Amino acid sequence: MPEPSVIRDVVASYVKAIGTGGAAEIAALYAEDATLEDPVGSEPLRGRGAIAEFYSAIENLRRESELIAVRAAGDSAAFHFRVRTETPDGAVEVEPIDVMTFDEAGRITSMRAFWSPEDVQSAS
Amino acid sequence: MPEPSVIRDVVASYVKAIGTGGAAEIAALYAEDATLEDPVGSEPLRGRGAIAEFYSAIENLRRESELIAVRAAGDSAAFHFRVRTETPDGAVEVEPIDVMTFDEAGRITSMRAFWSPEDVQSAS
Repeated sequence: MPEPSVIRDVVASYVKAIGTGGAAEIAALYAEDATLEDPVGSEPLRGRGAIAEFYSAIENLRRESELIAVRAAGDSAAFHFRVRTETPDGAVEVEPIDVMTFDEAGRITSMRAFWSPEDVQSAS
Repeated sequence: MPEPSVIRDVVASYVKAIGTGGAAEIAALYAEDATLEDPVGSEPLRGRGAIAEFYSAIENLRRESELIAVRAAGDSAAFHFRVRTETPDGAVEVEPIDVMTFDEAGRITSMRAFWSPEDVQSAS
């Protein structure tokens, strides 16, 4: 089980990469056979390739992100963060709560994102 | 699957009961065979009886609680909240992130609490 400090560091790296990183950089934080369920209730994606493709949708958009709170427990973490994305239709902001599990090496083995469309707000 | 508005109402009732309710009142929000894992990584409890016993530890302590954020998705919710408890050794405050699942009737079928001892702070 990774140390809580390792888990918190990976979460901080993830939130930073969500704001400024490319899809490959974000996907590199995941284990090879990791799963991604975003939002919770959708069909999970599996594997770093599918995960990189998922993040490629935001890769070319200007973004900002901020970690609000992270709680590590066992091999897992839950964290609350903010991401603002500049889209062709204007800026949008959402503050999801994500849950991740981690392997011994501190790679993300699963990610589940809790949010719904009504949590997405227009931002100026 | 319960409506997101039902899920959010149950979460609000839960956080309120954590602040002011008795153990039976809190446990009544759970389904009969629900599970409770608090903190994540500990052995889960099962059943409303065991769950009521879990909450009886705080029943006679003066408490305050506040919901910081809730995100509903699918049959689940993640929420960030604050609870302050007056213990014989002074007041302590913690801001866990909990994840819950719900049945059709809006009863809690599982609860997992993400926090660690280092998240608990002395409060005055």
